[in-house]
Amino acid sequence: MTALNLVATRDGLAHVDGADAVLLDLPHGDVAELLAEGEGFAPARAAKELRRVPLADVQGDLLAPLARTRAIWGVGLNYHSKAELTGRPVPEEPILFLRALSAVSAPGAEIELPQDRSGQVDYEAEVAFVVGRRMSCVRPERVWEHIAAVTAANDMTARDVMVATGTPSLAKSFPGFGALGASVLELAGVPDPGDIAVRATVNGVVHQDSTTAELIFPVPDLISRISRFAVLEPGDVVLTGTPAGTGQDRKVFLGAGDEVEIAVAGVLPLRTRYRAAPGRS
Amino acid sequence: MTALNLVATRDGLAHVDGADAVLLDLPHGDVAELLAEGEGFAPARAAKELRRVPLADVQGDLLAPLARTRAIWGVGLNYHSKAELTGRPVPEEPILFLRALSAVSAPGAEIELPQDRSGQVDYEAEVAFVVGRRMSCVRPERVWEHIAAVTAANDMTARDVMVATGTPSLAKSFPGFGALGASVLELAGVPDPGDIAVRATVNGVVHQDSTTAELIFPVPDLISRISRFAVLEPGDVVLTGTPAGTGQDRKVFLGAGDEVEIAVAGVLPLRTRYRAAPGRS
Repeated sequence: MTALNLVATRDGLAHVDGADAVLLDLPHGDVAELLAEGEGFAPARAAKELRRVPLADVQGDLLAPLARTRAIWGVGLNYHSKAELTGRPVPEEPILFLRALSAVSAPGAEIELPQDRSGQVDYEAEVAFVVGRRMSCVRPERVWEHIAAVTAANDMTARDVMVATGTPSLAKSFPGFGALGASVLELAGVPDPGDIAVRATVNGVVHQDSTTAELIFPVPDLISRISRFAVLEPGDVVLTGTPAGTGQDRKVFLGAGDEVEIAVAGVLPLRTRYRAAPGRS
Repeated sequence: MTALNLVATRDGLAHVDGADAVLLDLPHGDVAELLAEGEGFAPARAAKELRRVPLADVQGDLLAPLARTRAIWGVGLNYHSKAELTGRPVPEEPILFLRALSAVSAPGAEIELPQDRSGQVDYEAEVAFVVGRRMSCVRPERVWEHIAAVTAANDMTARDVMVATGTPSLAKSFPGFGALGASVLELAGVPDPGDIAVRATVNGVVHQDSTTAELIFPVPDLISRISRFAVLEPGDVVLTGTPAGTGQDRKVFLGAGDEVEIAVAGVLPLRTRYRAAPGRS
C-alpha cells in the first residue's frame, strides 16, 4: 500500500485514494487520536475498509483532522525570504510558542473576524508536522524517525494584537485561527521531507510560494530544539514558520468574504473563509 | 451535600470527606475530563458512592487530577509583593503564557532536575482555577459563574532558560514542571474566591505566604482578559501568578532531595520532590 493520506469525515477517518475516500473501520475521532496510540499509521493500515465514496462527496464537509492534538507549537520568523523582506535579522535561536487548542478550525471553515479586537487578521501558509513517537532531547539526525505525518497549516495571526501584547499565544488563539489539514499525509509519502512545497492563495491569487528548503532553522533542528525543553507526544503538531508574502508584507489584511487556500505538496488543500462579526459590515 | 473536593486515585475519582476518600462511580479519567462535559460537578454529585477508604491509604499515590486538561494558562508578575521585592514595575497588562500539557505532574511526584539544560529550577506557589463553562469575551463581573473549581499549582520555572529564551512556554514545560492538585475543590466550597490563601514550604520552611487578595490583576480581570483572545473551555486551567519568596528571590534553586509543598486553602497539599538526573550527584 502507498503512503496513507487521511481525512476526518462525519463518518470517521478515511484514506484518500485518487478521487475516492475510503472509509476505515477505526475508533479514533481524528488523526491526532490515532497517532496518540504511538503506533503511527499502522492501525489505519490494518483497518478494515468500510466503503469507498467519491472524495468530492465528503471534501466540502471535512472535520478538523487534528482537533484532538495536545500541543500546537509554532515558530516566529523562520524563512530567509521573510527575514529579507521585513529587514528583520535572522534569529540565532527559533522563537517558539504554543497556540491554544481551542483555536483549531476545520478545513473549509468560515471564521468570524474578531473585528472588535483586531483589524489586522492575517494568514500564514505553513508546513506542519505531526509527531509519531515520544520525543525528549532527540538529536536533529534522529528527528525524522519520530515524525509520522505532514499537513498544511494556516497559522492565522492578529498582527495588531501581536504588536500590542508581544504574545503569540494571544495573537494566534482567536477562535478558528489554527487551521490544520485538509488531509494528514504519512511522512513516508513525502519524496524529500527537507524540501516540501507550500503556497498561499488569497481569492485565487498566489501570495506565498516557497518550500521548507528555505527554512532558517530546518525541521530537524527546530523539532530537536523543542524536545530539549518539552516532551513532544505522539499526535503533537509542530508548525515551521511562514515564507514572505503574508498580508502584513503587503499591508493588506483579511476582510469579510476573503478566501485563503494553503497548499502543501501531497496534502489536500486547506481552505478558510472569513466573515464579518455580527453587527459589522 | 457540602462542596466536593475531588482526587484522582488509581481506582477512579474520589471525594475527600474528612479523613476518608469516597470512591465515586464515574467514567472520567480525571477531573478535567469530568468538567469537560460542561456540567460542572453535577455528574460527581449524582454519582453512586462505591466505597469509603481512609484518605491516608490513597493520598501517597494520587494521580494528576487535571492531566487531561486542554489548556494551562499562566501569568507572569502578578503579586504586588513580587513586584516590590524584584523592583520590576507593575505591568499594565497581564503577561500571559501557555504551558505544554506534557509537563503536568501528579501530586507527590519525584521530578528529575534537567541539570544538563538548567541549573536554576525554581518553584512557584499559585492558586489555579478550573473553567466550568465555555468562556468567550466574558466580562469580569461574570467570570466567577464560569469557574468550577480551585486547586494548587507548583508553576515550576527554569530561571536561566527564561532569561536565555524569554519564552515561558519553554522555561516552564520541562517534564513535571506543571504540578497541579492534590485535590480539586469545587468553587462553592471557597468562602471568598477573592481572598484565597497560598503558601509554599521548602523542606519544611515557609518561603511564600500570601493570598489572592494581593494580586495585581484580580482573578476576574485576568480570566476575562484571556477570554477576549482565546476561548476557554470547560476543564481548562488558569494559574494566577506567584507571590514573593521563590528561590529566585533568595538566589537558591532546587536541588536533589528537596521537597516543595504548595498549600492552597481547602485543597489537599501538593508535594513535589526533586532528584538528580542520571549520572549526576
